[in-house]
Amino acid sequence: MRFHTRKWIKPEDLNPNGTLFGGRLLEWIDEEAALYAIIQLENPRTVTKYMSEINFVSSAKKGDIVEIGIEVKKFGRSSLTLCCEVRNKMTRHTIITIDTIIMVSLDENGKPYPHGKTQIEYVSDRLKDN
Amino acid sequence: MRFHTRKWIKPEDLNPNGTLFGGRLLEWIDEEAALYAIIQLENPRTVTKYMSEINFVSSAKKGDIVEIGIEVKKFGRSSLTLCCEVRNKMTRHTIITIDTIIMVSLDENGKPYPHGKTQIEYVSDRLKDN
Amino acid sequence: MRFHTRKWIKPEDLNPNGTLFGGRLLEWIDEEAALYAIIQLENPRTVTKYMSEINFVSSAKKGDIVEIGIEVKKFGRSSLTLCCEVRNKMTRHTIITIDTIIMVSLDENGKPYPHGKTQIEYVSDRLKDN
Amino acid sequence: MRFHTRKWIKPEDLNPNGTLFGGRLLEWIDEEAALYAIIQLENPRTVTKYMSEINFVSSAKKGDIVEIGIEVKKFGRSSLTLCCEVRNKMTRHTIITIDTIIMVSLDENGKPYPHGKTQIEYVSDRLKDN
Amino acid sequence: MRFHTRKWIKPEDLNPNGTLFGGRLLEWIDEEAALYAIIQLENPRTVTKYMSEINFVSSAKKGDIVEIGIEVKKFGRSSLTLCCEVRNKMTRHTIITIDTIIMVSLDENGKPYPHGKTQIEYVSDRLKDN
Amino acid sequence: MRFHTRKWIKPEDLNPNGTLFGGRLLEWIDEEAALYAIIQLENPRTVTKYMSEINFVSSAKKGDIVEIGIEVKKFGRSSLTLCCEVRNKMTRHTIITIDTIIMVSLDENGKPYPHGKTQIEYVSDRLKDN
Repeated sequence: MRFHTRKWIKPEDLNPNGTLFGGRLLEWIDEEAALYAIIQLENPRTVTKYMSEINFVSSAKKGDIVEIGIEVKKFGRSSLTLCCEVRNKMTRHTIITIDTIIMVSLDENGKPYPHGKTQIEYVSDRLKDN
Repeated sequence: MRFHTRKWIKPEDLNPNGTLFGGRLLEWIDEEAALYAIIQLENPRTVTKYMSEINFVSSAKKGDIVEIGIEVKKFGRSSLTLCCEVRNKMTRHTIITIDTIIMVSLDENGKPYPHGKTQIEYVSDRLKDN
Repeated sequence: MRFHTRKWIKPEDLNPNGTLFGGRLLEWIDEEAALYAIIQLENPRTVTKYMSEINFVSSAKKGDIVEIGIEVKKFGRSSLTLCCEVRNKMTRHTIITIDTIIMVSLDENGKPYPHGKTQIEYVSDRLKDN
Repeated sequence: MRFHTRKWIKPEDLNPNGTLFGGRLLEWIDEEAALYAIIQLENPRTVTKYMSEINFVSSAKKGDIVEIGIEVKKFGRSSLTLCCEVRNKMTRHTIITIDTIIMVSLDENGKPYPHGKTQIEYVSDRLKDN
Repeated sequence: MRFHTRKWIKPEDLNPNGTLFGGRLLEWIDEEAALYAIIQLENPRTVTKYMSEINFVSSAKKGDIVEIGIEVKKFGRSSLTLCCEVRNKMTRHTIITIDTIIMVSLDENGKPYPHGKTQIEYVSDRLKDN
Repeated sequence: MRFHTRKWIKPEDLNPNGTLFGGRLLEWIDEEAALYAIIQLENPRTVTKYMSEINFVSSAKKGDIVEIGIEVKKFGRSSLTLCCEVRNKMTRHTIITIDTIIMVSLDENGKPYPHGKTQIEYVSDRLKDN
């Protein structure tokens, strides 16, 4: 799994008990999954369709740095299935895992749109081809 | 299911495609589940432990009003199991459902804490008793 | 008065003294009044025109849960007059009251628009009629 | 009346109808009144106690620049009475006026605290005295 | 240098160490420079092109009030060069200075647009002329 | 240069002209520099001391994905010197570059604190050593 985006937990990210607000964490994951899928499918109209069960394994506190990892599980016809792990950057302790996130590629009318992709591509390779 | 909290979808709640950002919706649900559990368990140290699979049934757009419903499924020893539905206030179309959300009551050291509750209570009744 | 929307006071809602920032509370009230009026008048182009004097009766602190109540006082030709109370969910202590909030229904050019409503309607009844 | 703080209306400040969200405007006013009172009373524990009726005279749109003016009406024993106008910077059209905002100076226990001030002071004069 | 906009440092503006988050401060400066330039050049399509080196001279803490000062250094053909200082309102200690901020006026296609201005103008004078 | 954190440009990140708000971009860079330095120096009390001139090379629009790259230039006694580039993920066009960002490690009293580091370390190596 490749971990890219990192977040620094600031006061605005805390719940009243002083630990990372779970809702903020879910917001970060959804954004990361969306942009990952948009990069792979090369279609900005890509939306979250499904998330499998979410386990809040451990929490995080103010000042912690977390990193969000995404991995591709399957390319469907108009979908892309991902899995996600968020962990503490310094200790590598898992904070949350989501086994399955299904993103769907849409056309201009909001209907599922075959994306034609079957494997991970790197932007560097795409740019070389041109 | 009782629907309480309502949200008016403003520009700051949209993804770049102009529909409700899924991460924002998850943030709203997590807050609603947390405060519902805190009210029932009378313990502010109550955190989200688990969410079952999430189906994004339909989306919402700028200006829509959504309402968030929570229902108790089970009182555990130190946990409270909820289910949640978010729907469009004007059409009653379902936007998202989550079958199981497990909230856990903690003590001052962050350990599970038996809450002693076995059924839904109303704040009005609690206040009458005093 | 019916109390719907609930808010959990998080660090981002505090003023530097550690109590609920009054500006945030006014923001919540304005949103609640707007969406209440939109639901009743069935017109998304409904704006706040006037608020009567505001009494900050008591404050709230981090972790408190507040609920916002709205009641209809009068249906005008293109206006809807509401009153509002915000209270602490757990103690029922009043935090703020606003006796009169006038919302105005507008047409596409921003001019007052007769809404044709004379009494409170429930969405469930509207949907049954269709 | 002196106009200090200026705001540039960005997408995050709009209601779903695309005009300035009234709640955001009230948030800005409350912050400006608070910091004005803190500067005058030299007490950071200064809170909003009362606002007189609020007239939403006109609206503002994305990209507009608004400026917020505050004027002292009266120094009380532990209070400071202000009035406020918000206007469009480029046209000087009034957006909102609030005739009376009462700020109260508190001691460490949250009780009203006599501030000993009877007239407007300038920070430059205070610093010269030292 | 004229100091206009004032900010009250709230919990949401802090980094995890409890002092003013530098990124928030840069955000405030960029907004102030943009609206200052828009007012002078009477063109809402004015963007930040360049900032010279930034010295974080001192920090600020929760509850502090800061004020942002802007001064014109030069009117170019399609640009406006500003300098900026942010200081603590109560102590006048400098928090940050930026010697040169270049704002550029654009036309509808995003190309530099000659603004025809050669000196500072006051909105009050402009309005008198009409 | 390694590019980690990615951002999806949402409506809340735009200026009124509909392009990425420069202040938001500076906020993202400052957070990324801070967390990068905290990871390297293993000291959460690390603050931004200086940024060299900033060139806004190109802009970005709603829906674009940007990635933020950081590279170490020099380990000082209590400082760490970084450089930064933000680019469009899909086109690799540069959006902004900052040649020098100096972060300083502080002790508990806010004084510069020798961090004892002389080269880049990877968290995976640190964890193996234990």
